[in-house]
Amino acid sequence: MSTRPVTRRTGKPGRPGYDLDSLLAVAVKVFNEKGYDGTSMDVLADRLGLSKSSIYHHVSGKQELLELALNRALNALFAATTESGSTEGPYIDRLKYLARRSVEILIAELPYVTLLLRVRGNSAVERRALARRREFDAFVTDLVEQAVREGDLDPDIDPALVARLLFGTVNSLIEWYRPRAGADADTIADAIVRMSFHGLGHTSA
Amino acid sequence: MSTRPVTRRTGKPGRPGYDLDSLLAVAVKVFNEKGYDGTSMDVLADRLGLSKSSIYHHVSGKQELLELALNRALNALFAATTESGSTEGPYIDRLKYLARRSVEILIAELPYVTLLLRVRGNSAVERRALARRREFDAFVTDLVEQAVREGDLDPDIDPALVARLLFGTVNSLIEWYRPRAGADADTIADAIVRMSFHGLGHTSA
Repeated sequence: MSTRPVTRRTGKPGRPGYDLDSLLAVAVKVFNEKGYDGTSMDVLADRLGLSKSSIYHHVSGKQELLELALNRALNALFAATTESGSTEGPYIDRLKYLARRSVEILIAELPYVTLLLRVRGNSAVERRALARRREFDAFVTDLVEQAVREGDLDPDIDPALVARLLFGTVNSLIEWYRPRAGADADTIADAIVRMSFHGLGHTSA
Repeated sequence: MSTRPVTRRTGKPGRPGYDLDSLLAVAVKVFNEKGYDGTSMDVLADRLGLSKSSIYHHVSGKQELLELALNRALNALFAATTESGSTEGPYIDRLKYLARRSVEILIAELPYVTLLLRVRGNSAVERRALARRREFDAFVTDLVEQAVREGDLDPDIDPALVARLLFGTVNSLIEWYRPRAGADADTIADAIVRMSFHGLGHTSA
């Protein structure tokens, strides 16, 4: 991809152009609104106020925009798995740490993670993203298994199911979280950890 | 919509045609694979092995197929809110009942609920569905508030957030549940109720 700056078709002096990051941000917004498969390069160009050829200065096409967006979300999530909170100490604490960090990442990278979680596997790019998601899920499942082994998690629920439910709860926030309306990342992370590990019941806190 | 039977374009004797239900089932499968906005009537006709005019015997178009599918999911969920398990007894039990019934409905009506949960509000049909989802969420939030009032739920978490997290966990199963692979509806419902109300911790069961 080129690093050449993109100028808007309207070309008004003083009006900022797009760098790759801001171009990607608009593309991801449109993908989330209309679905990736339902978004044409014409629609993208129209929303960006750019000609298609201006977009092609930056990326080879829609697929590359999708791959950049999905990797942004995946790289952030995988980075969290290598932090000391996820790799040191009792496994139950690593699991809580990763759940909490995932909430923060989902909120910080909301449009990118939203796109990632809606990927269906319709292309090689999407299938690579699904494979990396499975790798992340396997990391979480391993944390659950080790926490059971250490006696800190209920052994009667299948670890893979626990991993799915816990991160299902985390991931559900893409469906209802809206910036600047209601709870912040900390409040949501606290609530998820509290509900998932200690239960909603009044007496179990 | 007409109740006239649809015959396949291939028209081989003995080969079954589509009634509205089976036509809808195929359409919903395609919507889920390609996204509703990314699915044209031509694609639908091709997948059904029907001419477009054969589809138009049954429905006025893509929008009507979407509305029928979304209402099928919504009607099942709303029916559960009127069952005695959701309307009688301590509110904590009503909430557990509705969570459990929702798991059963999601699994029984998986493609329809999947479509419902991916609706973005791009048309009047989608906005009506979103309004009914908000009505369902309000019903759940009321159960949570009453359960807090009865002293059975942790009062320190915002009831609307509890409702979202609990049903976020339930709804997450559309992302990973596959029929005939792994846990059945009962096992999943048990795990969700156990995790959400009692916590995953070993000692809190």
